[in-house]
Amino acid sequence: MFMPRKILEEKLRQLLAEDVGQGDVTSAAVVPAGLTVEAAVVAKEAGIAAGIEETNVLAESLGLSAKAEVADGEKIRNGQIIMKISGNAQTILAAERTMLNLLSRMSGIATTTRRLAEKLKKAKATAKIAATRKTAPGLLYFDKKAVLVGGGDPHRLRLDDMILVKDNHVAIAGSVEKAVKKAKQNAAFSKKIEAEVTSTADALKAVEAGADIIMLDNFSPKQIKDAVEALKKAGFFGKVLLEVSGGITEQNLLEYASTQVDVISMGALTHSVKALDISLEIAKVK
Amino acid sequence: MFMPRKILEEKLRQLLAEDVGQGDVTSAAVVPAGLTVEAAVVAKEAGIAAGIEETNVLAESLGLSAKAEVADGEKIRNGQIIMKISGNAQTILAAERTMLNLLSRMSGIATTTRRLAEKLKKAKATAKIAATRKTAPGLLYFDKKAVLVGGGDPHRLRLDDMILVKDNHVAIAGSVEKAVKKAKQNAAFSKKIEAEVTSTADALKAVEAGADIIMLDNFSPKQIKDAVEALKKAGFFGKVLLEVSGGITEQNLLEYASTQVDVISMGALTHSVKALDISLEIAKVK
Amino acid sequence: MFMPRKILEEKLRQLLAEDVGQGDVTSAAVVPAGLTVEAAVVAKEAGIAAGIEETNVLAESLGLSAKAEVADGEKIRNGQIIMKISGNAQTILAAERTMLNLLSRMSGIATTTRRLAEKLKKAKATAKIAATRKTAPGLLYFDKKAVLVGGGDPHRLRLDDMILVKDNHVAIAGSVEKAVKKAKQNAAFSKKIEAEVTSTADALKAVEAGADIIMLDNFSPKQIKDAVEALKKAGFFGKVLLEVSGGITEQNLLEYASTQVDVISMGALTHSVKALDISLEIAKVK
Amino acid sequence: MFMPRKILEEKLRQLLAEDVGQGDVTSAAVVPAGLTVEAAVVAKEAGIAAGIEETNVLAESLGLSAKAEVADGEKIRNGQIIMKISGNAQTILAAERTMLNLLSRMSGIATTTRRLAEKLKKAKATAKIAATRKTAPGLLYFDKKAVLVGGGDPHRLRLDDMILVKDNHVAIAGSVEKAVKKAKQNAAFSKKIEAEVTSTADALKAVEAGADIIMLDNFSPKQIKDAVEALKKAGFFGKVLLEVSGGITEQNLLEYASTQVDVISMGALTHSVKALDISLEIAKVK
Amino acid sequence: MFMPRKILEEKLRQLLAEDVGQGDVTSAAVVPAGLTVEAAVVAKEAGIAAGIEETNVLAESLGLSAKAEVADGEKIRNGQIIMKISGNAQTILAAERTMLNLLSRMSGIATTTRRLAEKLKKAKATAKIAATRKTAPGLLYFDKKAVLVGGGDPHRLRLDDMILVKDNHVAIAGSVEKAVKKAKQNAAFSKKIEAEVTSTADALKAVEAGADIIMLDNFSPKQIKDAVEALKKAGFFGKVLLEVSGGITEQNLLEYASTQVDVISMGALTHSVKALDISLEIAKVK
Amino acid sequence: MFMPRKILEEKLRQLLAEDVGQGDVTSAAVVPAGLTVEAAVVAKEAGIAAGIEETNVLAESLGLSAKAEVADGEKIRNGQIIMKISGNAQTILAAERTMLNLLSRMSGIATTTRRLAEKLKKAKATAKIAATRKTAPGLLYFDKKAVLVGGGDPHRLRLDDMILVKDNHVAIAGSVEKAVKKAKQNAAFSKKIEAEVTSTADALKAVEAGADIIMLDNFSPKQIKDAVEALKKAGFFGKVLLEVSGGITEQNLLEYASTQVDVISMGALTHSVKALDISLEIAKVK
Repeated sequence: MFMPRKILEEKLRQLLAEDVGQGDVTSAAVVPAGLTVEAAVVAKEAGIAAGIEETNVLAESLGLSAKAEVADGEKIRNGQIIMKISGNAQTILAAERTMLNLLSRMSGIATTTRRLAEKLKKAKATAKIAATRKTAPGLLYFDKKAVLVGGGDPHRLRLDDMILVKDNHVAIAGSVEKAVKKAKQNAAFSKKIEAEVTSTADALKAVEAGADIIMLDNFSPKQIKDAVEALKKAGFFGKVLLEVSGGITEQNLLEYASTQVDVISMGALTHSVKALDISLEIAKVK
Repeated sequence: MFMPRKILEEKLRQLLAEDVGQGDVTSAAVVPAGLTVEAAVVAKEAGIAAGIEETNVLAESLGLSAKAEVADGEKIRNGQIIMKISGNAQTILAAERTMLNLLSRMSGIATTTRRLAEKLKKAKATAKIAATRKTAPGLLYFDKKAVLVGGGDPHRLRLDDMILVKDNHVAIAGSVEKAVKKAKQNAAFSKKIEAEVTSTADALKAVEAGADIIMLDNFSPKQIKDAVEALKKAGFFGKVLLEVSGGITEQNLLEYASTQVDVISMGALTHSVKALDISLEIAKVK
Repeated sequence: MFMPRKILEEKLRQLLAEDVGQGDVTSAAVVPAGLTVEAAVVAKEAGIAAGIEETNVLAESLGLSAKAEVADGEKIRNGQIIMKISGNAQTILAAERTMLNLLSRMSGIATTTRRLAEKLKKAKATAKIAATRKTAPGLLYFDKKAVLVGGGDPHRLRLDDMILVKDNHVAIAGSVEKAVKKAKQNAAFSKKIEAEVTSTADALKAVEAGADIIMLDNFSPKQIKDAVEALKKAGFFGKVLLEVSGGITEQNLLEYASTQVDVISMGALTHSVKALDISLEIAKVK
Repeated sequence: MFMPRKILEEKLRQLLAEDVGQGDVTSAAVVPAGLTVEAAVVAKEAGIAAGIEETNVLAESLGLSAKAEVADGEKIRNGQIIMKISGNAQTILAAERTMLNLLSRMSGIATTTRRLAEKLKKAKATAKIAATRKTAPGLLYFDKKAVLVGGGDPHRLRLDDMILVKDNHVAIAGSVEKAVKKAKQNAAFSKKIEAEVTSTADALKAVEAGADIIMLDNFSPKQIKDAVEALKKAGFFGKVLLEVSGGITEQNLLEYASTQVDVISMGALTHSVKALDISLEIAKVK
Repeated sequence: MFMPRKILEEKLRQLLAEDVGQGDVTSAAVVPAGLTVEAAVVAKEAGIAAGIEETNVLAESLGLSAKAEVADGEKIRNGQIIMKISGNAQTILAAERTMLNLLSRMSGIATTTRRLAEKLKKAKATAKIAATRKTAPGLLYFDKKAVLVGGGDPHRLRLDDMILVKDNHVAIAGSVEKAVKKAKQNAAFSKKIEAEVTSTADALKAVEAGADIIMLDNFSPKQIKDAVEALKKAGFFGKVLLEVSGGITEQNLLEYASTQVDVISMGALTHSVKALDISLEIAKVK
Repeated sequence: MFMPRKILEEKLRQLLAEDVGQGDVTSAAVVPAGLTVEAAVVAKEAGIAAGIEETNVLAESLGLSAKAEVADGEKIRNGQIIMKISGNAQTILAAERTMLNLLSRMSGIATTTRRLAEKLKKAKATAKIAATRKTAPGLLYFDKKAVLVGGGDPHRLRLDDMILVKDNHVAIAGSVEKAVKKAKQNAAFSKKIEAEVTSTADALKAVEAGADIIMLDNFSPKQIKDAVEALKKAGFFGKVLLEVSGGITEQNLLEYASTQVDVISMGALTHSVKALDISLEIAKVK
């Protein structure tokens, strides 16, 4: 996910504009108009930094000078200065909350993702952790980027990305087999086709019908192993990717990881974010 | 917070457009173009409904027919049908995730807010629970609305709302007293002035300088009680509102509530949302 | 009202874009493409400068060099050079009218506001002059800013600002008392509540119901004095702000100001603006 | 100026959205959510109606039912009901001010324009009254439309309309002759060319160089007559249009009109509008 | 590519708004305001219809009644009525050119695509014809949709779609092998990886490095056959898709198609469109 | 057509944003983040350069350094370097296709326009070649600009430009005479009036009714000559402009040019563009 800086700037300023409304009445009333200050963005708990690039781009696009002390994806300690920002005091104060809200949310997502990814790594699991489309509406780019920074896979970016045949498509098509066949027939050659299945039998049918990826929906680790066996028997194992989704928590993650699946996706990475506590402190009034 | 429906529609469709991108390739490939279906939006866990109005407005604005089975603010049981939506199958499937993401986030916020509000109510506390500006960037309206639906106070809507003198303003102004005086002098008559303070002494000075509301920042319950006493002594108690913020959790909430403060604000209500699990199921293919 | 410069730039360029349409056909046909010129923005009548910051920001955002000779809020004489702008000739000519339209309107508003504010000051009245929401649609920010620059109070910025119970709300609620009580019950703690009343009796009821500000609608100076007496008698005077609106002109202003009200609001400040005559003259072709 | 209704709707809702911000907090707090009311839009002074179509389109686009009692361009009496609007009470109250601001401004413009146009008509002058580009920024369409409704000519809609060589273009080109020649050479065949001149000599040169319209800038009636004579002598009279601009007031209008010019343009029509007093009254709560 | 109708409407109205500007001055001057007419959209040459859905949606969204006589993808004869539109005359005339421009361009693209696709079909070639990203800027959705309607493959929708390693990426990475390996390592699991190669040797290396699709860039039919042989020998044939691009014309298409490639992509489908001649005729004035 | 650079930038970035979507996944995966490269924009066929200014503005607005080797309107040879661009590699690659698509389309339009314009020049024809409103929707500015650069006349920019009475307006008005009279009566004085006619008789009537320009629609060269004779006889020739449109090709152009018409307009200039082949090559990795 590379976004030309100027286009990113516009996305970020739009978020800021929402919070500014008709203007920052407090800074206007209390802070002298031309005052220059230095501020430090400080972590109030440990985690993984994400949103550094975005905060930097927003600050600089507002005419502020910003210097990141930590790069996206790096560890941050409680109390550590993440970034130094200097420039017009009213501008810094007007942008403070938007910058922190983005930084805290993205770092929160990256922190959780990294913790899970490390867990898989330590257990030498081959599976990678992935996000879903259960992002905050409007923040798709930032939520996915934070998962990437944390070491996860962003999964489908949106509805125009990969074909993903889900339960409701199957309900309409009549069977997963019919749905995948239709997808195979109509999809652009550039698209992968993934099918969500609820049984081993359907997994086999989906593969036969041409799916590139199978999502085992709400399978227990035991059921996954059975599915893997059946795919091996049928000669399909290794020829399709296996994703598992539903019912996975930090606690049972390793159990799922032991099943030879390729991808473990968790909606909670982005729908139930725990923000990282980060604040901005005026360090020096010039 | 009343938003004319047509303006709300446009906000909602913009969120949908982000997820749709160049089109829903799966529905295009798998679902017949003119097909009509009925779908049920079903709760997968108990909580408080929020986002019902928004989902309804979005669905209807897309030409779908939507019937809410639950109103915003009502309790929902695990397994309960929250809303019925019928109409063009491709449209329903393309909007499904955006509708659910909004509904899950807003209901998650409302559920937590309500639980805390009920806790205060049972304890006969006079304080009310309030949000902060720590919302997801871009979702300010929806996050604040969900807090309201849950029974909380939305607090400042954005920077152009109330004057709120915070630590960084004080650092620039030199003292809370100076900051509040400047605010009092420059603010529009229609604005309340709130001041964040870190000591009882500053609380008194802020009131004297003309603050309408005092935010006791990171005060322990004990420190709050001392501040209340000091305000009573000085004859200010009851003439200003007292807000407390920082360090408050579900666990220690009642301790804080026992201190005679008017408002207890918690950033976590909107920055660390636990989404309510809600799904959409095609119930009938016509 | 502090607006980060980059966000202000975008607002201003949007106004310019409307006037430019598919391009300035005259400058394209008549002015050499790379030509650099110096221009002077000159006052054609005396008044108070407003819109200087906005013009400056727009000019600089277009790559022009701008130097204000007068600051917002300062007096300008007929014939005085307000600002010097130099740079690309086609750009200056394409932006000329938009810059002047904004400058003339804002300076016109500030000039009238200042004249009235000075009148009050000379009469040692404690009341301040305030705007209303009767602005030019789309120009809210600029109209309110100009009132501020002129020394007036901007009043409510928009519908999401203070609670203001007006005649139509009262008509629906049944009485001003009921309306204010409902407002008190439902409003966020951060909002002031103002009530428009048409009689002294209603003024008293509104205060009792919890209003922070009372707007005496179309009261004569005599009626205002009666209301003030009644409020004093009831012990409310000094505890609520008093605003008077309706029927006030430059001629009778001091009569109203003699009544101990806090705020005198006049819609004409922004709905019936007399633009200040300002022009731009190419001073030197390089 | 015909604008497809749906495109007009979007322009209008954008104006409304500015005033609504995060929502109408008063109506939300005081007015029951599903309540239906009837309202009357009432003139508080006599004048010419304009903005009726726009108000109607905005109201209907918000789901309200609107019935104009007066058409654009018709006379309205003090006290007359201009329009009846019924529907959701919160929506009516949230849109009230935006509708009235537009209606008052446009009717104010139309009223003045009509008065001047009638004056010319009574005097059997052949000149028509015209607007300039001195409109409120962002309101170009509405200001020009109001002039049209009042019986005036909208003049150039914006910079991409007709070629208009003004003083600053002449300053750059060296002479009005050179400027017009360049314009003639480079302009699209579909564009008229107008030249602003400050002397009869220049008027003649501009015509010779190919101008279709001559704007006599700040000419006295006497000077205009001299110019007309010179043009007649040179055989140009009747072959170009003559516009006069600068220094014209309601008082001296007929003097100017007696000079055989075709167009009399006045910036004040749109830069110094006197809004017509119009209000909205809830007539019936259902 | 399924786009919810309301989102498509907004895209289409934005295109219309560009052409309307400040209003249709001709229809305003010549056509009575409330007049209703019937119009026929008529083909002036034979071809394949595309843009029918879009024209229909735009017309209906403007309040017109539209009835397609031909569906997207169907053949149209010279002189055939494609669509009937009735409703407000000014609206029809204001939207006429935008509707026809879209319809003509999309039908032109579909007509060429179909002709080539039919050629391949008749020759029993297995290859399918595909578009590239060489679309008209801003019209990506419509250009790709037209290719689809014509029977072609839309290829990558935009930069966030499939990974496509091109010559410039290879120049930076050092070799196609290194580039594909980096892509394989960093890409989301949901993305296919395509590599553009200029030699058979590179084709083999790209496949070994993990590419899913190989684009043979500017290969002659003879060179393609050699590459196919080499891939067969290496056991890769049938495991990756083969795309050929560059130097393909309608004349030599079948030669390329005889080479067992899967996809033949041609930029000219969208960068050098021959519009289909279509016009709108007022059929009946009511 | 002069567009202030900053407004042009925003138009261009919007076009880029469409292609970027959620980010350039290929460059993100394959190209190192901070890498700087030099690239050359190279012509792959001879033609006339157009879009140089636009490409330059887009590149520089993205923070790239761009140096045009050829100016808009100049000839380019096959193999010639048109522009050098250096800077961030990911940014260059993400913007490559949008820059080339614009450059190729605009240069294609300019190349054809120039070829036709030169043909007229060589034949010493007085007619000039002109575009129509048959542009690609959304690209009006760029298509018209390219025609200008090629030496053609842009004709009406959009519906708010000149009055153009076409067949459908005539059908509604009853006759071309009535339509032109209505236009004359209602049009702003700043607008020219053109009328499309299908017979010499109508041409005469249109001129009598006040048309400034006559469009001879689908007249053969012979018919045009007859019309010219008739206009001469009636004393109108030279007093109105004559435009011919319909049925004109590169082959028969000179036949039409020999008829003394002023303007020859061809829709194909913009509706059936042959893009000029231009590519971007990374020349040096720093």
